[in-house]
Amino acid sequence: MRMVDLIEKKRDGVELTPSEIRFVIEGYTKGDIPDYQMSAFLMAVFFEDMTDAERAELTMAMVESGDQIDLSAIEGIKVDKHSTGGVGDTTTLVLGPLVAACGVPVAKMSGRGLGHTGGTIDKLEAISGFHVELTPEQFAAQVNELKLALVGQSGNLTPADKKLYALRDVTATVNSIPLIASSIMSKKIAAGADAIVLDVKTGDGAFMKTPEDAERLARAMVGIGNGTGRQTMAIISDMSQPLGFAIGNALEVQEAIDTLKGTGPRDLTELCLVLGSQMVVLGGKAETLDEARGMLEEAIASGRALEVFRQFVERQGGDPRIADDPALLPQADYTFEVQAKQSGWVADIIADEVGTAAMLLGAGRATKESEIDLAVGLMLRKKVGDRVEAGESLATIFANTEDVQEAMKTLEENIIISDENVPAPELILEIVTA
Amino acid sequence: MRMVDLIEKKRDGVELTPSEIRFVIEGYTKGDIPDYQMSAFLMAVFFEDMTDAERAELTMAMVESGDQIDLSAIEGIKVDKHSTGGVGDTTTLVLGPLVAACGVPVAKMSGRGLGHTGGTIDKLEAISGFHVELTPEQFAAQVNELKLALVGQSGNLTPADKKLYALRDVTATVNSIPLIASSIMSKKIAAGADAIVLDVKTGDGAFMKTPEDAERLARAMVGIGNGTGRQTMAIISDMSQPLGFAIGNALEVQEAIDTLKGTGPRDLTELCLVLGSQMVVLGGKAETLDEARGMLEEAIASGRALEVFRQFVERQGGDPRIADDPALLPQADYTFEVQAKQSGWVADIIADEVGTAAMLLGAGRATKESEIDLAVGLMLRKKVGDRVEAGESLATIFANTEDVQEAMKTLEENIIISDENVPAPELILEIVTA
Repeated sequence: MRMVDLIEKKRDGVELTPSEIRFVIEGYTKGDIPDYQMSAFLMAVFFEDMTDAERAELTMAMVESGDQIDLSAIEGIKVDKHSTGGVGDTTTLVLGPLVAACGVPVAKMSGRGLGHTGGTIDKLEAISGFHVELTPEQFAAQVNELKLALVGQSGNLTPADKKLYALRDVTATVNSIPLIASSIMSKKIAAGADAIVLDVKTGDGAFMKTPEDAERLARAMVGIGNGTGRQTMAIISDMSQPLGFAIGNALEVQEAIDTLKGTGPRDLTELCLVLGSQMVVLGGKAETLDEARGMLEEAIASGRALEVFRQFVERQGGDPRIADDPALLPQADYTFEVQAKQSGWVADIIADEVGTAAMLLGAGRATKESEIDLAVGLMLRKKVGDRVEAGESLATIFANTEDVQEAMKTLEENIIISDENVPAPELILEIVTA
Repeated sequence: MRMVDLIEKKRDGVELTPSEIRFVIEGYTKGDIPDYQMSAFLMAVFFEDMTDAERAELTMAMVESGDQIDLSAIEGIKVDKHSTGGVGDTTTLVLGPLVAACGVPVAKMSGRGLGHTGGTIDKLEAISGFHVELTPEQFAAQVNELKLALVGQSGNLTPADKKLYALRDVTATVNSIPLIASSIMSKKIAAGADAIVLDVKTGDGAFMKTPEDAERLARAMVGIGNGTGRQTMAIISDMSQPLGFAIGNALEVQEAIDTLKGTGPRDLTELCLVLGSQMVVLGGKAETLDEARGMLEEAIASGRALEVFRQFVERQGGDPRIADDPALLPQADYTFEVQAKQSGWVADIIADEVGTAAMLLGAGRATKESEIDLAVGLMLRKKVGDRVEAGESLATIFANTEDVQEAMKTLEENIIISDENVPAPELILEIVTA
């Protein structure tokens, strides 16, 4: 088999066989196939797409390029959730305790990551004492007993994907549905997921700018899931404005706790109920999404969801009193209000730019070496569609410096007020179950 | 400027500016742009094509990546001819003396090359004593006096094209009209051509298998010529069977001499008259193609074309008696006839395979190190459309070994006889003058 022939085949729109896909991925991972051939192949994929069979094979070839997490010591169907990323997305912090309270095992592996705020582990480290240093045995035991545990990423997972992503990044081949879908799915499968729930964001603050592109990506990933024996469901959700109110690490932990108590932001709560319903169904604990939703609502109302969170924090070394006393979270020294300069309706909250404001305050990492300030960030006081009067607060800045001019200016410019009534955007645009 | 942005731009079908094209070619030639970015760019070009302006700029950027031959010491409009290659193509040997006899300066730079037979220089070396070791001053003086001289390739011409071609070859990006056209045109322009005549072959024995593809390539090259100030004309000619009868080095020299005398194969003669007419018009020696053709026919009939050939051979050290005595050319030790096994009409002469038979006999180089046997090759005795009786000769093999079984078998299998009358193929499919 020669790589140049496989590039030509893909270029000419002919489906590659499973063994040809394996040859490409294994050869590239080992270094037998050079970057210059792989980048031509990737560009051909950009133009010619891949069939369902090719996408599934590509995904499994990437899974098998490295270590795979063995979760067989954990009872039940392990359901993982993935979001394509946005601003102020606190769902993971809420969903873990919430679906665990319904009996679905959540064996979560998470990262720190670059972005407007930290990753899930960074956020939880806002809780004094919390750590993710569990042995595989401790991890399995905790999930079996509590249905919820969180560890940091370990092992050499999907090296093929890492190598491919670095190449795609410099050859304008990132933005290809089969390549994005197989990259995401390979990581979830390598991390041991039996079933997968996907939250594909769309809008200005998301990677997929239009609902059509988001739907294509969602259907591609559900197709890969079905093609590789992992039951998969997806939703398309709005990211034209940030989710919830909080953007910042301790602030999001507080918002997650509020949501587990039933007093969280309406959009965040709704999104968690929709995604959680899919997780409960895929975890085999309910027959229908409606039945699952009822179970989740009951877990909040009864306090069981919050109780799972409390025990989860305690078992991983954190201070469980946090669940009842938000003052125990890191507090910023200063707060500033972003005031509306005119009356009207909030027409737009540019998610990307608002996220950048949070990063300017120190809530996120610009580079791997950056230190995160867990206390800082911002709380939106209004969302798109809300009525606002001149002088009212649009957002509160939480800072550890008095110099917040740049963040203030960014927020003033990117929370847009209109003279006309603007409807709130639809939160859940579509549910993709097959 | 970042290469990744230019790849994306091309990928998305946006026209690149001249300075962007320069950035790509200069950066790649210098090694600032890595192969893996260039191959992704080339694949994007494969799918998105290039505009006329992009093609012209790409061509000139490749021309200026290396040395350019200065032919300013030579009087008149220097017209060069290029053929996209086929089997038994003896036109260069005929056209040089023929158009020089009409006053058009032919300052030819030629190569040896790999293929079924040698290049133009190899063929002429079948003439005892002939050499191409001329100083630039000798070269210019000879063209000014005789209107015809031939030298070997020298200088570092179009290094960008060489580097690009090597990459295209292993990344399935050879077969792209703008890339093929700019590659050919850059070499002609760097070699000093003021005007260019192109013979684009089509058919089984050619790179362009269909007349449609051949026409696209011809129009692309004429467009580049016009866009870079080099008047250019093209024809599309048939290469579904070999051109003329001779395939082999000395055999083709003999065939060229016959053609200059007016006794050559009909198809070769016609092709030379058509291409020669374009050269004479572009060289400014005739107003119309018809007028030019009349001049060429007269140059043959009067013996002037053959006389130019004789003087050309003599001035470059060769034995001029060759023009009158073919026995002075290298002769093969053995001849064998390929006999028709049935009566009928010749339906097909698979050009590629017949060329391979000549190479098996030793007429061409398989690798750069191969030695060519100038005496060997084959003469077709029938062409497509000819009536043939069982036992008649279809071709004569000229060999320096008695073991010609493989070549014989190849010829028997690839000269196809039909029970039904087959028309001779049209030789000139189209003339592209703008």
